[in-house]
Amino acid sequence: MDSILSTRDGHIVTVTLNNPHKLNALNRLMWQQLGVTMRELSADDSLRCVVIRGAGDQAFAAGADISEFARERADSNQGEQYGASIHKAMQAVARCRHPVVALIQGACIGGGLEIAAMCDMRICGESSRFGVPIKNLGLTMGYGELQGVLAVVGRAVMLEILLEGRVFGAAEALHKRLVNRVVPDADVEREAYALARRIADGAPLVARWHKQFIDKLGATPEIAADEWKQGYACYDTDDYRRGVAAFLAKSKPEFTGH
Amino acid sequence: MDSILSTRDGHIVTVTLNNPHKLNALNRLMWQQLGVTMRELSADDSLRCVVIRGAGDQAFAAGADISEFARERADSNQGEQYGASIHKAMQAVARCRHPVVALIQGACIGGGLEIAAMCDMRICGESSRFGVPIKNLGLTMGYGELQGVLAVVGRAVMLEILLEGRVFGAAEALHKRLVNRVVPDADVEREAYALARRIADGAPLVARWHKQFIDKLGATPEIAADEWKQGYACYDTDDYRRGVAAFLAKSKPEFTGH
Amino acid sequence: MDSILSTRDGHIVTVTLNNPHKLNALNRLMWQQLGVTMRELSADDSLRCVVIRGAGDQAFAAGADISEFARERADSNQGEQYGASIHKAMQAVARCRHPVVALIQGACIGGGLEIAAMCDMRICGESSRFGVPIKNLGLTMGYGELQGVLAVVGRAVMLEILLEGRVFGAAEALHKRLVNRVVPDADVEREAYALARRIADGAPLVARWHKQFIDKLGATPEIAADEWKQGYACYDTDDYRRGVAAFLAKSKPEFTGH
Repeated sequence: MDSILSTRDGHIVTVTLNNPHKLNALNRLMWQQLGVTMRELSADDSLRCVVIRGAGDQAFAAGADISEFARERADSNQGEQYGASIHKAMQAVARCRHPVVALIQGACIGGGLEIAAMCDMRICGESSRFGVPIKNLGLTMGYGELQGVLAVVGRAVMLEILLEGRVFGAAEALHKRLVNRVVPDADVEREAYALARRIADGAPLVARWHKQFIDKLGATPEIAADEWKQGYACYDTDDYRRGVAAFLAKSKPEFTGH
Repeated sequence: MDSILSTRDGHIVTVTLNNPHKLNALNRLMWQQLGVTMRELSADDSLRCVVIRGAGDQAFAAGADISEFARERADSNQGEQYGASIHKAMQAVARCRHPVVALIQGACIGGGLEIAAMCDMRICGESSRFGVPIKNLGLTMGYGELQGVLAVVGRAVMLEILLEGRVFGAAEALHKRLVNRVVPDADVEREAYALARRIADGAPLVARWHKQFIDKLGATPEIAADEWKQGYACYDTDDYRRGVAAFLAKSKPEFTGH
Repeated sequence: MDSILSTRDGHIVTVTLNNPHKLNALNRLMWQQLGVTMRELSADDSLRCVVIRGAGDQAFAAGADISEFARERADSNQGEQYGASIHKAMQAVARCRHPVVALIQGACIGGGLEIAAMCDMRICGESSRFGVPIKNLGLTMGYGELQGVLAVVGRAVMLEILLEGRVFGAAEALHKRLVNRVVPDADVEREAYALARRIADGAPLVARWHKQFIDKLGATPEIAADEWKQGYACYDTDDYRRGVAAFLAKSKPEFTGH
């Protein structure tokens, strides 16, 4: 079964993160497939809007699949490689030439929240929930993803999300401007596709130009290669190993600062 | 009849966009006069606050006057010239040394919303409405104006306004931080001038310095000349002609992506 | 009696601005002590969170102590020296390697609001109040502090706070995103320390990295030395002398623009 599904209806394509037994948590293969899929869609001039969603109504995506971290993300070298896969997928979403709408139901956590932030608009149901509790795993968000989420929520909310690590509901996500719109759970699909059609009814070149112009104006400082690498230093810490072990054991981690 | 009026009361000058039969939509002459007026006011050291408003209570401004586009904005060359007039007027508002308050009643759409965003503060009535539905016209917002609106509402709201192209009300404008304050329709004038007087009661040099310092800190990446020119490529598209024709015929445009 | 107190409880240190008879307004010595204290705490690897608060429940801090301005901040030279003390203290808060939470009760005005903005999160009680009414004193906020507040509230709110100079309540501070959270007055302490513990429970290196990465991405344009100096030109104006005199006489200043 494909883990990233793609279906087309007229000018609109739906991309589905498909790992419902794990709340659509993304494993390494899914990150790669998401990148490939989004790059293909971006190149298709006949498209006007992409909707990204999770399979089922329990989750957009619960993040990266932590059960494979011990094997795939065991130290800073592996962390950098795994991080590059994530970053390529995230950039493929962010740089898609067509407008991208995140249709969010249920859990939108960690890497799931990062994917949503790379989209151009986010609409969610009242019972959806958000957060990036990676302080409990002992790992950091990479520079590329930080930049994308920061552009959406601003400095103060970004610090709150990462330092406090709390999971919060849809109303708070709206106040934090993490989502554009909250609707009753039963209406999320209908409203998201109504939104996608409003976008698709507009002049498609105008939509692509606007995305491009806004990106140009939002350029942030260059991050030097050695600074970028620091984004993977966390994978060599003892606390990272403690955090992942505690997560898998469903216990509370005791961090030491090493 | 002058299309840009200017009246003084003590330290406060009111600038009125005066084309009430067209909801104060700005034609080319009005863009030029607005620029001239704002540059003169900026140079007057005896001033402390400028209030910009529309004539009557039906509109701040409904945008640019689309009925003259076929003649004045027919291709990318004309688009660039017309765009330069708009940009000069917008910059004259944005760079006015004195604080500028937008007093908003009724429609604040397209170029009207852009003018309001160039002001330092925005106060509106409960029934005012906002939006930039230029995706339906097949045209793009220029870099200069994008930068100004983006500085007010941030990336996520900017994308929503341009990609979805919806017209929305005052409460949503407040949530989107597009306006500083919403008051009952009957109180807009009184509250706007009370605000202008609070500003005018402060030390005038301090107000000018603060504007200048904040602008310096908010500097965005330089846009190269060829990139800037891309902001006018839309005027050579088939979809632009379809969009304007549909607008004037009050019909729904069918865009082709060319 | 020390004017900056520091007490430790496990991984959390509380720093108290201690000048309760003047609503914790900071005099020159307090600015220096605050800088020294924060630099020491930043260097202590065993810490995980710093809480900054005012002594008592009437004020976080009411700003700088204006009664010493005639002696300590009498012209642009003194203004630059005094400003350098403030800036060093503010930078010591902003650059603390550990997460810093502002626990806000009562008045959070002027320099007090600036200190709070340099913190990573802000939690306040329902009756707390906020503002930077320095337009009435004839003085400007320095570039360093402007940058910090701007990063929290954005351009539109920054202009409103400085140009209008109004003092506003907790609900408005929340809408303006100046604070992360408003709670009943009786719960501020409990909620702030619960928040500090959530932060302290996370991996400490991750918190430090996240702060560092976000700062890097939020870098603003360099301010040249001569431009920076303009931030002190206000201290040579006649209006500054009028403003301070009016404040001390509890009268309304009449500004002339000189």
